[in-house]
Amino acid sequence: MKELIKLVDEYLDRYMEIAYPEDIFKAMKYTLMLPGKRLRPVMCLETARILGADIKKLLPSACALEMLHVQSLIHDDLPCMDNDDFRRGKPSNHKVFGEANAVLAGDALLTYAPQLIIEKSTELSSTQILRIIHEYTKFAGAYGLIAGQVVDIESEGGKLTKSAKETLDFIHLNKTAVLFRLAVRMGAIGAGADDDTIEEFDNFAKKFGLAFQIYDDIMDEISSFEELGKTVGKDKNSGKLTYVSLYGLEEAKRKFRFLIKECYDIIEKYRSQVFTEILDKLSSRIDD
Amino acid sequence: MKELIKLVDEYLDRYMEIAYPEDIFKAMKYTLMLPGKRLRPVMCLETARILGADIKKLLPSACALEMLHVQSLIHDDLPCMDNDDFRRGKPSNHKVFGEANAVLAGDALLTYAPQLIIEKSTELSSTQILRIIHEYTKFAGAYGLIAGQVVDIESEGGKLTKSAKETLDFIHLNKTAVLFRLAVRMGAIGAGADDDTIEEFDNFAKKFGLAFQIYDDIMDEISSFEELGKTVGKDKNSGKLTYVSLYGLEEAKRKFRFLIKECYDIIEKYRSQVFTEILDKLSSRIDD
Repeated sequence: MKELIKLVDEYLDRYMEIAYPEDIFKAMKYTLMLPGKRLRPVMCLETARILGADIKKLLPSACALEMLHVQSLIHDDLPCMDNDDFRRGKPSNHKVFGEANAVLAGDALLTYAPQLIIEKSTELSSTQILRIIHEYTKFAGAYGLIAGQVVDIESEGGKLTKSAKETLDFIHLNKTAVLFRLAVRMGAIGAGADDDTIEEFDNFAKKFGLAFQIYDDIMDEISSFEELGKTVGKDKNSGKLTYVSLYGLEEAKRKFRFLIKECYDIIEKYRSQVFTEILDKLSSRIDD
Repeated sequence: MKELIKLVDEYLDRYMEIAYPEDIFKAMKYTLMLPGKRLRPVMCLETARILGADIKKLLPSACALEMLHVQSLIHDDLPCMDNDDFRRGKPSNHKVFGEANAVLAGDALLTYAPQLIIEKSTELSSTQILRIIHEYTKFAGAYGLIAGQVVDIESEGGKLTKSAKETLDFIHLNKTAVLFRLAVRMGAIGAGADDDTIEEFDNFAKKFGLAFQIYDDIMDEISSFEELGKTVGKDKNSGKLTYVSLYGLEEAKRKFRFLIKECYDIIEKYRSQVFTEILDKLSSRIDD
């Protein structure tokens, strides 16, 4: 796990060169290089590895995933969105570079991510690259990540066009699970896996993503600023729709444990130390 | 020309279906469907046509170009950027849908454009599609359009890291010419043109783009709100770096006419009614 994170950090730094005009590249790189768990790239690389591929093949896709994730964080933190001054324990992008540069840095990451995949995936076939880019566009846009963000924002304003439960499921699936799904799908496609295997990993990622978001909802309820590195209690204070607010803390914990158990079951046969470590770490902080 | 515009409008409407969550798709479609000259898609289709391709092949790419262009307009108009309340004579996106949705609608267009090219370009080969997407990512991002926007914003704040002339050239080339270059390159690639022909059209688009921006600078100086459909005199009032502010109105007009003449010369042999019409229309409003 640590080795994979180190590898991702090394390649993120290498792939993100500072060119003219420096301000935009610096803004892109600032949030990108803040220490993070690199969960999405790690899951992409590990999926490829356990399906028999050399992980080097997937490094551009893995780094692109982190760029896409960071893009969504930068735009999410903007004053007109969640208005968060901190991210990963540091001032958020617009606090350092200004709002205009933060908007443009997000746009630039959204475009650079597929550019990187096309230019650096020298060991993937054109067909694999095109399929990976296609998945990227589907999951990153209005049919994926952005749909999740929009419904999330609307639900905060109390505007629901579906039931609260359906709305929450939609948000969790599209705002959070979507990038884990994209991660394992990219890894599986890069490893040349068949459709059944891709769907198996997709199913794992959906459950993992839901568990991850419920974990986040629970943590927002019970943690401190120091632990999370971002403003806490925001969800509660803003009356936001969360698993905890809708089902209560105990039911949230029960659902979380159930999903994590399902994840262990799906992934067991691959004997993946990394996936086991990810599941262990996530579940260790939610007590019974 | 009119027929091509109508065709583009028809396909933009067809390609941009309203799905759940409706607000984001409506926000994307709002600015997209405001009546416009559709110059970039028209130039893409016409390039393909005069190089011998069926323009139907290029309709997804042409519409993607307009989406990319509209994305840059939506983000450009945001309060943290140019803070423009009007676009194409109507309230700008954030005035209608709010800032958060305007940011996300831009992001969504930026991702949907390549998705559309991949999904709907059924008559192009995978190699052509991948090359077109690659061009898209290069020209739309921090090495193209966004670089132009960043330097433009910095120059407004009086922050120059290069000479004023170099800076202005960089802005014009990257903020304006870049999408015309992308347009003709996509058209030429889709028509299966060789590299020399692609570069010939690229050269045409560079000159056209510079002429177009100088035209815009001149118009901002001499037109009224009714004519432009957007706030005018802003450049002058904000002390912005423009061709007119740097070289004076007469020299701007001279440079404009010189570039347009070069454009006519390059394109002459193709006997293109559409390109001739575009050049005629642009030059007719700048008197001698």
